[in-house]
Amino acid sequence: MAQQLESYIQEHEGRFLEDLKGWLRIPSISTLPEHAGDIRRAAEYAAGQLRGMGFANVGLIATKGHPLVYGEWLNAPGKPTLLVYGHYDVQPVDPIELWETPPFEPTIRGDSLYARGACDDKGQTMLVFKAMESLITVNGALPVNVRVLLEGEEEAGGESIAAYVQEHSDRLGCDAVFICDTGMPSKDIPVLIYGLRGITYTEVEVRGPKRDLHSGEFGGIAPNPLHALALIIASLKDAGGHIHIPGLYDRVRPPTGAEQAFWRDDPLGIAETLREEMGTGYVGENEYPPLERLWARPTLEVHGISGGFVGEGAKTVIPAAAKAKISLRLPPDLRSEEVFALFERRVKELAPAGVEVSVTNIHGGEGVMVSPDSAPMRAAAAALKETYGKEPALTREGGSIPIAALFDEVLRVPVVMMGFGLPDDNLHSPNEKYSLAQFFRGIRTVASFLQKLA
Amino acid sequence: MAQQLESYIQEHEGRFLEDLKGWLRIPSISTLPEHAGDIRRAAEYAAGQLRGMGFANVGLIATKGHPLVYGEWLNAPGKPTLLVYGHYDVQPVDPIELWETPPFEPTIRGDSLYARGACDDKGQTMLVFKAMESLITVNGALPVNVRVLLEGEEEAGGESIAAYVQEHSDRLGCDAVFICDTGMPSKDIPVLIYGLRGITYTEVEVRGPKRDLHSGEFGGIAPNPLHALALIIASLKDAGGHIHIPGLYDRVRPPTGAEQAFWRDDPLGIAETLREEMGTGYVGENEYPPLERLWARPTLEVHGISGGFVGEGAKTVIPAAAKAKISLRLPPDLRSEEVFALFERRVKELAPAGVEVSVTNIHGGEGVMVSPDSAPMRAAAAALKETYGKEPALTREGGSIPIAALFDEVLRVPVVMMGFGLPDDNLHSPNEKYSLAQFFRGIRTVASFLQKLA
Repeated sequence: MAQQLESYIQEHEGRFLEDLKGWLRIPSISTLPEHAGDIRRAAEYAAGQLRGMGFANVGLIATKGHPLVYGEWLNAPGKPTLLVYGHYDVQPVDPIELWETPPFEPTIRGDSLYARGACDDKGQTMLVFKAMESLITVNGALPVNVRVLLEGEEEAGGESIAAYVQEHSDRLGCDAVFICDTGMPSKDIPVLIYGLRGITYTEVEVRGPKRDLHSGEFGGIAPNPLHALALIIASLKDAGGHIHIPGLYDRVRPPTGAEQAFWRDDPLGIAETLREEMGTGYVGENEYPPLERLWARPTLEVHGISGGFVGEGAKTVIPAAAKAKISLRLPPDLRSEEVFALFERRVKELAPAGVEVSVTNIHGGEGVMVSPDSAPMRAAAAALKETYGKEPALTREGGSIPIAALFDEVLRVPVVMMGFGLPDDNLHSPNEKYSLAQFFRGIRTVASFLQKLA
Repeated sequence: MAQQLESYIQEHEGRFLEDLKGWLRIPSISTLPEHAGDIRRAAEYAAGQLRGMGFANVGLIATKGHPLVYGEWLNAPGKPTLLVYGHYDVQPVDPIELWETPPFEPTIRGDSLYARGACDDKGQTMLVFKAMESLITVNGALPVNVRVLLEGEEEAGGESIAAYVQEHSDRLGCDAVFICDTGMPSKDIPVLIYGLRGITYTEVEVRGPKRDLHSGEFGGIAPNPLHALALIIASLKDAGGHIHIPGLYDRVRPPTGAEQAFWRDDPLGIAETLREEMGTGYVGENEYPPLERLWARPTLEVHGISGGFVGEGAKTVIPAAAKAKISLRLPPDLRSEEVFALFERRVKELAPAGVEVSVTNIHGGEGVMVSPDSAPMRAAAAALKETYGKEPALTREGGSIPIAALFDEVLRVPVVMMGFGLPDDNLHSPNEKYSLAQFFRGIRTVASFLQKLA
């Protein structure tokens, strides 16, 4: 049976890739209203895949935002039920000029497939589909019951799926959740994720003069909202990475001894891999090991500042207003809403004379910690060992999958986070890619995982 | 004769305005390459006006950048020669959505004409043209010799006219220069400008990681160029308006007793007018009177910050690079190039770990101080007294007209800066306007000035 499965996968690698490429050609950018039609097309595409495998009750679930995609295969009585989560929306593509090939024309270069969403999360979701297709075709059935629930707002705050899970948890009965939206430190180092950070994403608006002013006419007496933002941001986080928001660090959970040792020794060289990827030295709280800073410390980043003039040449404007997008990553136990309140209060305190400041909570999500000792986590570990030839490491990730925390809180079942992304996959950047080897090994791993879960 | 002149002006007000509107319809934005054709059309339009008045040797002078417009009327032997300067280029129009009527469809609303360039400097240049046209038509001649030299790069650094004046000063022989590109504190307060600030306009680029990064994956160890810019900017100028660039203040010329008294007492209420215009309290070096801060103190402003994501919604990017446009206004005696060197050194010192910083000198210009006691300045003062009914005040301006300093240095003749803009003219902002009353009174004042200069 294992041999038949392997043969099927080998034989159909080309079509598996074509099915992924078809999905990648749809520019389902969830944050840009002009792509609403593409979002729907991408959702329908996923539903088509599920129907093709013989899933039942397949369809789009309307929400206040972008639709969810649902489908179920519940023909394994007595076996556990797995809820598979993924997302079909992707990040924006700017700066577009840095893409070597167009983001929505999937292109194989070297050992990778390049496209926006190639990894995050169309590639990772498609490999789960292809593992299931292979099992169903070869064996006539899946070894466990499966519900699939995809969202189209992961890159836009994920509010709709959060509302759905909270309101309709009865429709999502399961014994475990599987999220294939994480990565590995390198293609030789399988990992299982047991912790993620949460996030608070904000926009700070500073309003100064009642209109744009000329710096020759008013420079010396006028408040400058861009300068005020610089003062605020510089006071929020110093050059040593310390965030100056009273109360923020109060609830940071102390690491266990094993975590401290792992982070200090970094036996997998994860931090070094990331360092090479970013091409500079480590910046931030140097009193903590890099892995602790990435996985277990709150961090604050500015993502963009608008207002005034950034075109070619020179314009001597003092803008009437300016905005900054600022987010915090939060280790588990720091609640997003509470951190937003601390942040908002601090930003308002820091506003210099002459300006008014308002702070908007764009979106938030909680961090999560799961136990590695559940049966589903053990099945995933065994599957990784089988395909990668070594025990997976237990690691955290610094990113946020708020829905993981929500599944944990609402469904109260183990959440398995096993993904096949690599640090150089350029998530959220130009030239996003997915390793072909990881895609195909991911299919084999997930097929094995489902079998071991049975 | 005075009565005939007055009748002619009254009779032709409508056409004078139409001639200005025709010029304003040409979007001669000098900083945007796509407007190169408009720049040329605006230059030709000005040349057409000069030819229409009977000027000789009218034509466009090619430069490395946008053309100069030249024309001369040298038929008053034994009389002084006046070099009239103006500029036919305009500022960009963004944010375009804030314009009540389109910037290049000149529209009269209330007592003003609205359009980009309505005041700066097409309106002010056109009123000089119309004063000359009136004199030539009514008297058959101008009372003095006149050379007109217009540039098309005033809003883009003015390099071409600077090069021309330095290389061809022999072609610009004159006894005085007249620049009509300044304003008055209110329509009842005539002023003559005896001082302007210089400028150093820079772009600071910060490069961090070798590519855009995901803040979940890298937040905690990656340098963030936007945060580095905030740290640099906050260290360059504090909330009290003090600029922390060693050496910057060393050469600030101490004010005279008369200046100190004028600035302290502000008998014309200039600062209050500006305060109402900006709609907030005074910000900056509160230990100096507002007028001193505006006219005689160095100031530093951030005009825009680019890099990362500023679109709708959220993107958790740590950008590979970010840029800020930052300028300094410089009282006379601070040389633009020297200040750039101080600025560049300081910015590089302030760069935090993990980033590289480069600083570009986008353009610069010197400040200027002229003597109020020359015959041309006395003629201008007498003309203003005649049309406004009161002695003009001698004031400085905080803005920069680098060509004024260059005329002063190269031609070594008095530079008369007399203009009719008002503080609410929205220069460089949406809804730029020009007071119709100021336009027509300006025509009368300039006609009188030319007569008194004879």
